[in-house]
Amino acid sequence: METAAAFEQVLEIRVRAVDELLDRLLGERIAPGEIARPPRLLAAMRHGVLNGGKRLRPFLVLESAALFGADETAALRVAAALECVHCYSLIHDDLPAMDDDDLRRGQPTVHKAFDEATAILAGDSLLTLAFDIVADESTALAADRRATLVLALARAAGIGGMAGGQALDLQAERTRPDETGIIMLQAMKTGALIRFACEAGAIAAGATPADRERLAEFGSAIGLAFQLADDLLDVTSDAATLGKATGKDEAAGKATLVRLHGAEWARRQLGGLVTQAHELLKPYGSAAASMKAAASFVALRQR
Amino acid sequence: METAAAFEQVLEIRVRAVDELLDRLLGERIAPGEIARPPRLLAAMRHGVLNGGKRLRPFLVLESAALFGADETAALRVAAALECVHCYSLIHDDLPAMDDDDLRRGQPTVHKAFDEATAILAGDSLLTLAFDIVADESTALAADRRATLVLALARAAGIGGMAGGQALDLQAERTRPDETGIIMLQAMKTGALIRFACEAGAIAAGATPADRERLAEFGSAIGLAFQLADDLLDVTSDAATLGKATGKDEAAGKATLVRLHGAEWARRQLGGLVTQAHELLKPYGSAAASMKAAASFVALRQR
Repeated sequence: METAAAFEQVLEIRVRAVDELLDRLLGERIAPGEIARPPRLLAAMRHGVLNGGKRLRPFLVLESAALFGADETAALRVAAALECVHCYSLIHDDLPAMDDDDLRRGQPTVHKAFDEATAILAGDSLLTLAFDIVADESTALAADRRATLVLALARAAGIGGMAGGQALDLQAERTRPDETGIIMLQAMKTGALIRFACEAGAIAAGATPADRERLAEFGSAIGLAFQLADDLLDVTSDAATLGKATGKDEAAGKATLVRLHGAEWARRQLGGLVTQAHELLKPYGSAAASMKAAASFVALRQR
Repeated sequence: METAAAFEQVLEIRVRAVDELLDRLLGERIAPGEIARPPRLLAAMRHGVLNGGKRLRPFLVLESAALFGADETAALRVAAALECVHCYSLIHDDLPAMDDDDLRRGQPTVHKAFDEATAILAGDSLLTLAFDIVADESTALAADRRATLVLALARAAGIGGMAGGQALDLQAERTRPDETGIIMLQAMKTGALIRFACEAGAIAAGATPADRERLAEFGSAIGLAFQLADDLLDVTSDAATLGKATGKDEAAGKATLVRLHGAEWARRQLGGLVTQAHELLKPYGSAAASMKAAASFVALRQR
């Protein structure tokens, strides 16, 4: 737990620049080709993004970029773009037609603070802005790398990734997926963006396909661990520690691996995933220390 | 009116390849990097796209590409991507929280045929897919042109363009925009994508900045004409001819230029916009005949 707290401090310092960049990108100044930025819509986008999120995904982008020596400004922009995608997905997931949540991080969700239509459009605009940020020449990478990043981000976020995973999750109560089904659903819903975060640095740096694949595998492992830890906390933690309601999965009749196999099994699995993730980073030695710490944090966090 | 009918036939033949491509892109086969394509979500996306739309925007992409000699396969993909953005916007605009429409082209809207959550995710996935399509190497253009197209499409679709325009439109009943406000709202909500359609061919072909700007101006003119014609038909046509309810703007208390200045003024304006659009294409001579016909069609159409 102390390690987790220490890592959270490192993370907070590391991603401060991402928050500053997001604040600037979501500013009032219009970009070339834009006509105006309606203030209320902009405020809703800011509400959904500048909310003290942990920025785990941006951190992974920055660290994977550092590992391969990618341009740091470019890495910051890709990290900010990825966070826009993550935040758009939270805004839409919270809508009444989806998970119908009124609070996120103790604040009213976007549709509560504004209205449903504005929340839908804020999500749409954040998703669009993400691709804007990556494609822009200010992301100082060769155009082929920017195009590859746009493509990889789209594949991770779209029907074959995050959005598809959310669709499966909404159906899960009715379709009752088996173990394979649950793993696939989670790999799509939460795994795909984390995987992208880890391979993004390799793409930005023009690393070899083998390195990109290795980082993507690392991302898949910690994505799985992230979700397993989440499901575990839902059964073992209390609302005060977690900062959100627990027992939600059971109440919702949601099938999770933890509910199938129990907490003990989940802890063993998490240990195995951390070992696997660390093994994957071995070729990079101490340069990958932060990435390794991130893997441990994701699996062993208490909230 | 006969000219309009003739143009519609030309348009229909020209965009058949776009429909075929959309059918393929929205197929069951997963792309590299995708995990699965949930069938129900895919069906909802297909419902929202493969619905006999006029495909005016794809037509403009194809014709502007032909004008500058851009690769035709690439142009088809950009045209398909743009149509994905247009269709996503219709799916989200039809939602209960927005315009709350049950029917589109005589068919149930996506949230009626499926459910609200699926409609939201289908829109999200189509928007994401659009950037996937443009960025992919299969869009056989140099990477810098693909990146430029991604950027221009994002700027046209996001907070500074279409999505921002929809946000302003939803507020318009309350904010009662003046003439300048209405023009800006419409330039964002409908104008930005039409403008992008017209400049996309110039970007794809690597035309000069001056040519790109000229085509963008042409796009702005016909975008304005498109909306003006729409507002005019709302007051002058009947539901049988138009295939949708008329008098909607007045019933909704919506301020339009036609309601401010009257039908006669609108007809004069439309004539002026067509002249202006044709003037802009003069340097290209007879090579721009189809684009000129499109401008006339947009302004003078009876439905």
